[in-house]
Amino acid sequence: MEKFQLHILGCGSATPTVRHFPSAQVLTLRGRSYMVDCGEGAQLQLRRCRIGFASINHIFISHLHGDHCFGLMGLMSTFALHGRPTDLHVYSPAGLREVLQPQIDYFCRGMSFQVVFHEVPTDRSEEVFSDSALRVTTIPLQHRVPTCGYLFCEQPGLPHIRRDMIDFLGIPHYAIMGIKEGGGWTTDDGRVFSHEQLTVPARPPRAYAYVSDTLFCPRCAELIRGVDLLFHESTFAESDAARAVETNHSTAMQAARMAELAGATRLVIGHFSSRYDDEDLLLAEARSVFPHTERAAETRVFDIGE
Amino acid sequence: MEKFQLHILGCGSATPTVRHFPSAQVLTLRGRSYMVDCGEGAQLQLRRCRIGFASINHIFISHLHGDHCFGLMGLMSTFALHGRPTDLHVYSPAGLREVLQPQIDYFCRGMSFQVVFHEVPTDRSEEVFSDSALRVTTIPLQHRVPTCGYLFCEQPGLPHIRRDMIDFLGIPHYAIMGIKEGGGWTTDDGRVFSHEQLTVPARPPRAYAYVSDTLFCPRCAELIRGVDLLFHESTFAESDAARAVETNHSTAMQAARMAELAGATRLVIGHFSSRYDDEDLLLAEARSVFPHTERAAETRVFDIGE
Repeated sequence: MEKFQLHILGCGSATPTVRHFPSAQVLTLRGRSYMVDCGEGAQLQLRRCRIGFASINHIFISHLHGDHCFGLMGLMSTFALHGRPTDLHVYSPAGLREVLQPQIDYFCRGMSFQVVFHEVPTDRSEEVFSDSALRVTTIPLQHRVPTCGYLFCEQPGLPHIRRDMIDFLGIPHYAIMGIKEGGGWTTDDGRVFSHEQLTVPARPPRAYAYVSDTLFCPRCAELIRGVDLLFHESTFAESDAARAVETNHSTAMQAARMAELAGATRLVIGHFSSRYDDEDLLLAEARSVFPHTERAAETRVFDIGE
Repeated sequence: MEKFQLHILGCGSATPTVRHFPSAQVLTLRGRSYMVDCGEGAQLQLRRCRIGFASINHIFISHLHGDHCFGLMGLMSTFALHGRPTDLHVYSPAGLREVLQPQIDYFCRGMSFQVVFHEVPTDRSEEVFSDSALRVTTIPLQHRVPTCGYLFCEQPGLPHIRRDMIDFLGIPHYAIMGIKEGGGWTTDDGRVFSHEQLTVPARPPRAYAYVSDTLFCPRCAELIRGVDLLFHESTFAESDAARAVETNHSTAMQAARMAELAGATRLVIGHFSSRYDDEDLLLAEARSVFPHTERAAETRVFDIGE
């Protein structure tokens, strides 16, 4: 099975520390890379994670706080320097084009590609992107500015053909794609074999949910039900739960509760406040609720659905 | 003697590598920090270099290429988050205010301080800043956009008082500052002692020159004559000298020639192109011309004038 992977470029929060870069991630699937948030230094971290710049054509920004988008200009500037041939698509809540376009015009004069901005809703779940590998849907969140998460669902694969039936019935090569796509087969002597008799179902499509900065938001659980991997912000420890409410953030235990509510297979926590020297505390708190929790760390890679 | 130090936050060039951050430095003297260029990730590097954010009140930008200024927004945004009480002064060639102010207005709403932009000339040497510790003068350079370097000269200190003369003549405490500032002393019986008899000269003020992106520019040597430390961009090795000319950059040997022409005491090379895996090659080339050369590296600290 082809790998579907999450690469952590940065998992700190707004105040810089020596431990973390601000929020940035990349999903890789079938040779393509999809960037999720783009905090300062994301382009440096792409190098460290050995992710090719040219493989990135789509960037999904959760909200317009600097620690989630200040890496965009550096990245675009490097794309411009490299003479990138293809357009770059950036998905974000309203306002990014207005703040970024003047900088692009100033710093990337005469560049070889267009930046295409797509405004996404933050008040409802809506499919905002689809290609042959993935569908991307917004997850409305509750933060100090309009914010959404993103659900990345693998496109369902075609069923697998049953080699034994093909051989037994002598089905010719040219007919196989038609059967995979839903057709059956009738033999020369009139016997009919259904699609289901000739195939085995494809494995279920894999899904990853990115829940960015938010107040604990249990109604989201329905939107991300059964995901293979959930990233959930975990800015605070339980002892700072009041501060989490004040700043519209979540605790590690709330992230774990969300994973439990949504029936996620695995949880990754991140977006750690700079106040915790020992983030294992956050991990322990989350695991007390949802044992299959991992801690994000720069350059760490998580397999989705394996 | 109080230390006057150069801290390297980043010494790569525009294309990101795993080895370097883009250009950013901090000078420290008498408890104050002066930032010189501010490439992406500078605020993270401040943490690594253990330089307090509050000690920075002045930032000197050499030119408006992203690898020298994309760290400003992140840094200002963190200043805003910290509720910084004092204004921040940013010196740069024309255009920075226009491109940065809209972002400041968007990302730092209601912040507790002002960013005061100062436009500096790039076609002549001019004093652009002075406080009780330093004077800063522009160094006109030749790059693809208006660019200047900066010469940082320590303010001359007062001469030291001769303890033996004070004791011998019984000069009272209240008179000492007047003598240090240039006065003499007349004893009760009318004997006159000159300022020079009562003091020993202060040590010569120390100086640091930052020569940012530029075509080799020998006429600059006169402006930076005798500096204790010269940082000179060294983007290319001698084998790529033609590329240096094409892109308005310098080679490591040209940096060394400049150090020699200017009679600098020590040279630090940096702004290395991503193409050289082994930067010791650049160091060796520079040292073949100017032996007192060091290689910049992230978090490295150089004493100025010791």
